Order: sequence, then structure tokens, then C-alpha cells
Amino acid sequence: MKYSDIENSILQKIRPKQEERERVESVALELLAEVDRSEYATGMVVGSIARDTWVSGDRDLDVFMLFDPSVTREDLEKKGLSLAKEITEKFGAVPVEKYAEHPYINTNIKGFDIDLVPCYSIRSAANILSAVDRTPFHTRYIKEKVTGLTDDILLAKRFAKSCGVYGSDHMTEGFAGYLCELLVYHYGGFKELIRAAASEWKPGLIIDIEEHRTKDFDEPLTVVDPVDPGRNVAASLSASKMAEFSEYSRGYLEKPSEIFFELREKKYLTKEEYKEILAERGTYIYSVVFKTPNAIPDIIVPQLRKSVSGIEEMLERNGFAVNRYSEFMGEENCILLFELLNDNLPGIIKREGPPLWNRANAEKFFHKHLDSTSSGPYIENARYYVEIERKYRNAGEILNSPEVLQSGLGKHVRRSINNGYDVFSGDACYSDEFSGFLHDFFRKYSPFAEIYTDVNSR
Amino acid sequence: MKYSDIENSILQKIRPKQEERERVESVALELLAEVDRSEYATGMVVGSIARDTWVSGDRDLDVFMLFDPSVTREDLEKKGLSLAKEITEKFGAVPVEKYAEHPYINTNIKGFDIDLVPCYSIRSAANILSAVDRTPFHTRYIKEKVTGLTDDILLAKRFAKSCGVYGSDHMTEGFAGYLCELLVYHYGGFKELIRAAASEWKPGLIIDIEEHRTKDFDEPLTVVDPVDPGRNVAASLSASKMAEFSEYSRGYLEKPSEIFFELREKKYLTKEEYKEILAERGTYIYSVVFKTPNAIPDIIVPQLRKSVSGIEEMLERNGFAVNRYSEFMGEENCILLFELLNDNLPGIIKREGPPLWNRANAEKFFHKHLDSTSSGPYIENARYYVEIERKYRNAGEILNSPEVLQSGLGKHVRRSINNGYDVFSGDACYSDEFSGFLHDFFRKYSPFAEIYTDVNSR
Repeated sequence: MKYSDIENSILQKIRPKQEERERVESVALELLAEVDRSEYATGMVVGSIARDTWVSGDRDLDVFMLFDPSVTREDLEKKGLSLAKEITEKFGAVPVEKYAEHPYINTNIKGFDIDLVPCYSIRSAANILSAVDRTPFHTRYIKEKVTGLTDDILLAKRFAKSCGVYGSDHMTEGFAGYLCELLVYHYGGFKELIRAAASEWKPGLIIDIEEHRTKDFDEPLTVVDPVDPGRNVAASLSASKMAEFSEYSRGYLEKPSEIFFELREKKYLTKEEYKEILAERGTYIYSVVFKTPNAIPDIIVPQLRKSVSGIEEMLERNGFAVNRYSEFMGEENCILLFELLNDNLPGIIKREGPPLWNRANAEKFFHKHLDSTSSGPYIENARYYVEIERKYRNAGEILNSPEVLQSGLGKHVRRSINNGYDVFSGDACYSDEFSGFLHDFFRKYSPFAEIYTDVNSR
Repeated sequence: MKYSDIENSILQKIRPKQEERERVESVALELLAEVDRSEYATGMVVGSIARDTWVSGDRDLDVFMLFDPSVTREDLEKKGLSLAKEITEKFGAVPVEKYAEHPYINTNIKGFDIDLVPCYSIRSAANILSAVDRTPFHTRYIKEKVTGLTDDILLAKRFAKSCGVYGSDHMTEGFAGYLCELLVYHYGGFKELIRAAASEWKPGLIIDIEEHRTKDFDEPLTVVDPVDPGRNVAASLSASKMAEFSEYSRGYLEKPSEIFFELREKKYLTKEEYKEILAERGTYIYSVVFKTPNAIPDIIVPQLRKSVSGIEEMLERNGFAVNRYSEFMGEENCILLFELLNDNLPGIIKREGPPLWNRANAEKFFHKHLDSTSSGPYIENARYYVEIERKYRNAGEILNSPEVLQSGLGKHVRRSINNGYDVFSGDACYSDEFSGFLHDFFRKYSPFAEIYTDVNSR
């Protein structure tokens, strides 16, 4: 038996039904026909639907519009967009212009979330002109390899989704669909992948199916793209998400259960629950809230991460002990959240000067501070020290000060904060927009820990 | 002119007067005669009086009683002590038995603080049987070299004393008299020594007058003993005291003044002053106080240092931010003093677990904490973390807990603390016994900073 009862039962649920398959195929064919009808481009369905590796209920349909490489980049974008808009409108749908490496159209037709993406049709993936040009090659490669592994891929994707590590966007830092497909192919099946992840994986792992790697990658996991020897398919996977997948695999092998394939519902905190948690923890919560900049999450989220850790370091440097911090990009507002162990400090702060052996700087430090210190300059460990008046005695003060703008913020974040931001503390940090984020911030469990008791009780 | 007006004026004060010289010589001669009258030993005056490098007002007179090396160690101690006691009593004085490497007698005769020390009379310093046997060689070496440098040595010793770095005991960690003498001899004078210290000194400096060093020393300053190639005369000098001497030298060259030779009066805080300082600083003061163990400072003080820094680390580890800490050995009680920036903490504490890649330990950590945490296990940076209940939420609590005894205390200190200790906080840390220590703890200045304004105003 290739699959366990659990896996067979899951496959019953996630394998697309015949009618579902027919529906998506008919929509895809209609779209392809429209693209082919134009004079400049030919259509191609890419992504998991084209590769037959999609899970029942998936509503994502990616249609690429392949242009001849002789078309200029400018024309590709202009003609590509206008063709996509035209098609969208023919179906009575609303085209939404989006932007990755170049612009494309996203829309909703007959219940499907459809991307219409212009790209170049080229002969070899080595000659691509833009990142999207690579996608058709991925589709062709996988289509050729997945024979007999389709169900394994469905299980792997669903397992990763349940674990919360499915998706290569910057919010998730997890496993792209293509990466799951390659891993299943490399290990020869779902169970084989899980076993390897549970027992062998550690950062530095290199998987090079085509044995054609042309460079070293420094990401935790390297899976060399079979269609491009200079690209790591796992580049955006973080060490933590890799570890979580590994832990989840170990958990599944220890206590096999359908729970490992269930999609966990997004949870939210009510204001009352939030207040209770605060009272229980006895910590000091501060938030910095500002308007969400107008750009996609893949641009903003890394900036938020940089910003929140810059401010965290600034707080630590000023004597505030940060227990946890995190960031979230909401539709309207972004939040940088800090949980502190102390929020008030005495009026003095110690400053380390140069070692006395660094004579020029030591003398400068000595004379600079001689008349303005509450203590010192004094010598400890052969260095000068002084104690001076602490500028910020309260965490709220410093978060409302210009120090925030000097904390190494990302470009868009800096601009938005510069236009105005709010500092909240304690109960006031709660808002409906952040209720899901606040839940995840406080109710923190590793994927397996979260379901452990659940598994035991079934 | 060899000396400046300042230096000449200082020399007037510190050069022993004729009558002072005659008085000490007469006492010395009487003692020598008594030793020589015995059948086993011959007397020798050692130390700065013998070397003519003493400062007016010095009351220390060291008389060594040289025994033949054929005498057993046991006999040396027994006969040495009884001879010393006998002599002491002849002068109508009270003998006090002390102990360095072996026992000796300390007493007070005609206003002099006299040590009567038994040692072996040997031919070469390379064959010494006990550390004190080396002293006569030092005396002979210096006597031979100091011609024309006596005044320079007096200035150097007084300068070091004024700086607070004179003495090689563990409390001071400064410059021994013999070290001052060698430095002046090496550099060729007081001014030359000062100039070198101000501009050239840095840790790693090696001075090897006889060019006979047989090993490497890892102390900040190495001055190879001219009578023993395997010994560093500056072994007990700390980097900070070396730096302070260097700074003081720089200060003297920048603003020459008699203040650099003045002995600073020991200062004390009144209870009122202490309370004012506390109110001003707004910090949290805690002390651990226990009976002073019955042993010499050179044994206890290093133990106090080890203990106070062990407890400091324990406080930091538990979330209390220590701004300053220090230790003091009083006649009756010892004190370990801590100034904290916070003294209360929230009820949770974060614990870092192993990286997930360390599978065996990660699983152990996971299962250990699964049911007993207030949060987690969760994954961050590919490691497990949990938050558990904080055991000590208040600095007083932890200082009253068994953690103190597990903080790497010295042997004598552990025993005394084990017999009972008190934890005081805030105003209650004050006591008359510690009023001098508390002054130095709070009124902290580098030697030059302390007198800088003073120098400017004269």
C-alpha cells in the first residue's frame, strides 16, 4: 500500500473531482482561445493547474501570454496589458493592474482568481529576459516528471499548507508550489520527503537534481532549479520555516493523524481576551502604527521586518528589555509591536568611552564629558566611563521621538512614518484590524505543539 | 635643573629629615643587635628604609632574620617566631602573629610598624626556598643601582600614592615600592618615567632590565625581576591601575601642580548625603552583608570580587540590569553592593531551547515544556523557545534565595554567607562601617578627573 488510510482519506478530499476539473479546463480553454485570437501573443496555462498538481478548491488560474522576443520590453508591457484588459472585459470582469517584475492583470472570472501575465516566448531558460519567462519552463519540466507522483505532490502541498509554511512570498518565507513538486520528485514520494525532512534535514542541505549547479548559495536550503543552474528555488525559504516543516514531519511520523492535513482556521482575539492576556503577562506593550504604504506585500513586508528590528535594537540600546516584537501589514495600517519587560528607567545612563590606550580619543572623551556628567569620567577595565542624564526615561517617550526615524527603516516605511504615526500602549494597542495579528503574537506555538494535544485526544 | 619648582618643593616635604633618619636607624640597629645576639640567625634591614628610598613619615620597618638553609622549614618557623616574640617583648611591645607564605611577627616599637620575618640566607635568588627569601636580594640590587636616583624614587612613590595606585596588595592592585624603584631606574628618572607612562605605555609592555627573561607573562605590564628571570614584579598590577597611572602622568604634564603629590583624604558619606544621592539617581540599591571571614585581605578581597561578579551575572541572567557593583571588606562585615536599573519584573521569562537541528535535545525540550509553559514551545530563528513562569520577580527575592550560594562564591565567603547574611535595599544599605566605601562607590572619578577642577582653580 503506497498510502496510509489517513493519506487515502485526505486524497479523497483534495483530489480535484471530475466536474471541478472540467470547469477549470473550460475556463482555461476560453481564455487561451482569446489570447490566441490576438495577433501578437499565444496563450499558455502555467502553474499547478497546468501541471495537474492542484488541490481541490484551488481557485488560482495563471494564463501566460507569450510574445515574440523581438517585441520591445515597452511594447510587451503595453500590448500585454491592453490585451489582458480587453479579454477581462469580454468576460464582463474587472481588470486590476498589478506589478511584480513587470505589470500584469489580475481578475476574477467565474469564481477563479486569474492572472493574465505577458512574457517572452524563448527557447532556453538560460536566455530569459524577465523572471516570468522562466515559468513556462517550470511547467514543462514538472509535466514531464510527475507521472505517478501527482497524489504525492497533492499530499505534500496540503501538508505544508496545514503546517503554515506553504508559499514563497515574504510574509510566509515558506515552500513554493514548484519547490514542493521538486522535493517530492527528488525524494520519490510524499512519505520519502517527510522522512528525510524529519531525520536528515539541516541548514546547508543541497539538492541538485540535474547536477548542474554553477554557484554556491548561502540560504539554509538549496534546491537548484532544474531549468536554471544559477537559481536556488528555495531562496526565499527561511531557516525557521524549514525547521517548522521538519518538526511537523517528525510530529506526523510520531502521531499520524488527519490533523496534519487540516487547514487551521485564522484566529482572532477579542478586546476582552486581549486585555486578559495583558493582565496575565504583566508586561508593557507598545505599538507604532502608520498608514500602509501603497505597494505590494513583497515590497512592504521585508521593510517592516527591517524597521521593527531597527527599533527593537534602539529600544535595547536605551535600556528597554524587549521580550517579543513583530510586525504586520494590514489593509489600512501597518503595526510594529513591542512587548517590554520594563517601561520606565532611572534618570542616569552609563556611556562607555574609549580605552585609555587610545590616547587621542580618550582625551577627547575626557574633556567632552568633564563638566556635564552626573558621574565620571571614571576608569573601569582600563576604559573611560561616564554616567550622564538619560534622555528617554520612558518607552513611550522614545517611540515618540526622532530616534524612530533614525532606526534604519525601509524606504516606504520611513516615508509613511514621516507623514505621521501613532504610538499606543497597553490596551490601546488593540484594534479590529490587528485582532488576528495580536492573536498570533501572543498565542505562539510551533506547528506541532499547537496540534499536539489535539492529536492525542482524537 | 633636574627638578621643577613643584618637585623641589615636594622633595623638601618628603625627603626624610636628619633627625628622622637617625631615629629610624637607631631603632633598626637595636633590633639587628637583638637578632644577631641569638645563636641561629643574623639580622638584615630590608625594604625602603634599607634602600634609602623611604618617604618622610613612613613608619614601616622590615627586619629579616636570616637562618642557615640547613635548618628545617618547621624549625625556621618555630625558632623564627619565638625569637621574634622574645625580641618584641624585650622592647615591651605586643607581638601579633601574622601569616603570608609563612608566619611572621608584626608589632609596634617606638612608633614604628615593625615586621620581624624569618627567612633563609641563600647565595642566589634562583635557589630561594620561600618568597620572602627573595627580599634581601631586592634590597641588595636596588642599593647598588639607586645612586643619584633616590629623590626620583621618592617623587615616583609619592606620585603613585597620590594617584591611589601605590601598593601591590589585592585591594589596590597597584605598584609595589620595588616596582616603582625599578621603573625609575629603567627610565633613568622620575620625569622620564612619567613621560613614558603618559605617551608610550599600553598593555603588553615588557621591561627586562637584565635581559634575562625565561618566560612569557600575560599580565598587562611585565617588569622582569632583575634577581629572578622567571618572575614578573608587576604581576599584581591591574590594567585599570596601569591606565590610571598613565592618565595621572598625562594630567601632570598637562597641568603641573603640587596636587599631584598630595595624599587625598579618605572621604565618607553621611546618611543624609547617601539618601540624597539615591533620590537623585532613582536607581535601586541592594546589598548583601555578612560577617568578615577571619583571614587577611589578600585572601578575602579576591574572593569578594569573584563573589560580587558571580552574583552580578546571576542578576543579569534573571533580567535585572546591573548598572554598578562593588565589594568591600570591613573589620566586622563584608558588603557586596549592587545598583540596578529595575527591581521588579513581569511574571514571565523566556527560555531559549536547542536549535531544531539538534534533534535529540530539541525533542526532549519540546516534551519537557509542552504542558508547563505560559507560551510555546514556539520556533524562532530555527530554535525552540518557551516562556515560563518567572521564579524571581523582585531583586530582593532572588538575593534572599539559594541562587546566591550557587553563584560561584569564594570558599571563605561561601562559608560566611552560609552562616547567615542580610539583604538590604535603598536607604537601609547605609551603615557607618560602609560610609567610606559608599562614598567611593557613588562619587566615582578617574584620578585626574577628581583633581582637574582643583588644579584649574589654583
